[in-house]
Amino acid sequence: MSVYSAFRTLVPVRPDDIDMNRHVHNSKYADYVLAARYDQMERCYGMAMDAFLERGLSWVVRASYIEHRRPLVLGDVAAVETRISEIRKHGVKVDFMIERESDGRTAARGWFDYTLVCAVKGRPQVIPDDVVAVYSV
Amino acid sequence: MSVYSAFRTLVPVRPDDIDMNRHVHNSKYADYVLAARYDQMERCYGMAMDAFLERGLSWVVRASYIEHRRPLVLGDVAAVETRISEIRKHGVKVDFMIERESDGRTAARGWFDYTLVCAVKGRPQVIPDDVVAVYSV
Amino acid sequence: MSVYSAFRTLVPVRPDDIDMNRHVHNSKYADYVLAARYDQMERCYGMAMDAFLERGLSWVVRASYIEHRRPLVLGDVAAVETRISEIRKHGVKVDFMIERESDGRTAARGWFDYTLVCAVKGRPQVIPDDVVAVYSV
Amino acid sequence: MSVYSAFRTLVPVRPDDIDMNRHVHNSKYADYVLAARYDQMERCYGMAMDAFLERGLSWVVRASYIEHRRPLVLGDVAAVETRISEIRKHGVKVDFMIERESDGRTAARGWFDYTLVCAVKGRPQVIPDDVVAVYSV
Repeated sequence: MSVYSAFRTLVPVRPDDIDMNRHVHNSKYADYVLAARYDQMERCYGMAMDAFLERGLSWVVRASYIEHRRPLVLGDVAAVETRISEIRKHGVKVDFMIERESDGRTAARGWFDYTLVCAVKGRPQVIPDDVVAVYSV
Repeated sequence: MSVYSAFRTLVPVRPDDIDMNRHVHNSKYADYVLAARYDQMERCYGMAMDAFLERGLSWVVRASYIEHRRPLVLGDVAAVETRISEIRKHGVKVDFMIERESDGRTAARGWFDYTLVCAVKGRPQVIPDDVVAVYSV
Repeated sequence: MSVYSAFRTLVPVRPDDIDMNRHVHNSKYADYVLAARYDQMERCYGMAMDAFLERGLSWVVRASYIEHRRPLVLGDVAAVETRISEIRKHGVKVDFMIERESDGRTAARGWFDYTLVCAVKGRPQVIPDDVVAVYSV
Repeated sequence: MSVYSAFRTLVPVRPDDIDMNRHVHNSKYADYVLAARYDQMERCYGMAMDAFLERGLSWVVRASYIEHRRPLVLGDVAAVETRISEIRKHGVKVDFMIERESDGRTAARGWFDYTLVCAVKGRPQVIPDDVVAVYSV
């Protein structure tokens, strides 16, 4: 059981997210999680992506796992809940759950493993103590 | 001066909309207008895209013109205002204006010219009278 | 070790695939694999996606795992190799490897787990024998 | 009649370009033109986008006009022909024509008006003489 807090962001489905199967294109779920993390970095952790970029740092995806349960369709709003499951020396693992906001049913779940990198060279960086502190809520 | 009503929809910028120039990618503005029209079809005209698809009809873009004024960036919300400027036999021309919601400054403006088509064959269709009535607000 | 054949498709990186970090956006790797599978369904298995749609069938992603090794950048061509690792009653698991074509270095690897569904209702379908035969190369 | 040369680039349609109408999504045509220009900047003009970025310069879209004639679908290859129609102090206007490669029929046509900007501040820049020379073929 994770000791870290869960946060929730609403991401409305856009028509350009819909594919030939008339539901949200599978790779867009990764973009919904990304949108939720950006929102939560700023709104919930108080350390927006810009704060990292200003320090010459950026986050990149090292690995991800996505499980699709029910398709989201046009008109749906994705409720994206994320929660840090592990803070490592150079990275953070984040579990997510995407629900259809109208009825709370699970659309997708999985995790993203992010690495902190130097924005210019892309080399992994040790997560600074103040960032660890901010993420340890 | 158009005799038709203007409607407004907020579209939050997503991280996957940002390109290598670190602002919203130019082709995404077309997707923001599309998102606004879908929202307004349902919420403002009371005739969602689904209502067209159920009648075997769909809307396609015949032509579009977009003028970029100021870039939108991560964290911005696009306020998309659209207004029908012309209803023709087989199509509708829609003017749009995209503002940065935080300060009301213009990000882009232009128009989309849509044609009503048969959803299966893609052939232009005469806009039914009830649709003309719904759009004539 | 998989008994199934590996196939290779070249996917050129497009400027709209590049994100604010100036490399290929992470969710685009899933789209590159999809592009490779569509190409290979037609060219290597001789059964294009259209052949499925004509039978009222479609493939959807049930789960996916992606590991990122080295970023692809503008000007790169992705060489996408896929190989079926498992054929189940309702689905197929496909391993992939994405290399930078210029030097053969690994950009990403992982797998996609696809389910065969009825195109209208989205319900899982037993993979027909002729499809199993076609995929068992 | 333009005095400048026309160049041609093939852009294969990818499955993630297809929308709910089962043809290439309208905003993707802008991305196909962008892909063609990047290819042609490097291959035909011998001055890749990187050469601009290294000088602190970038190109942004000031305005665009797109006319859709026939939809491109899955399996098609877009043949994108572009030709400079006008070189101004701070910008370049480029006409384009997108054909379906298999039969040469027109899918879309229109133009893009690009402005040269300072990559950091985004301010319009006078096009350097050597760039004008390179583009005047």
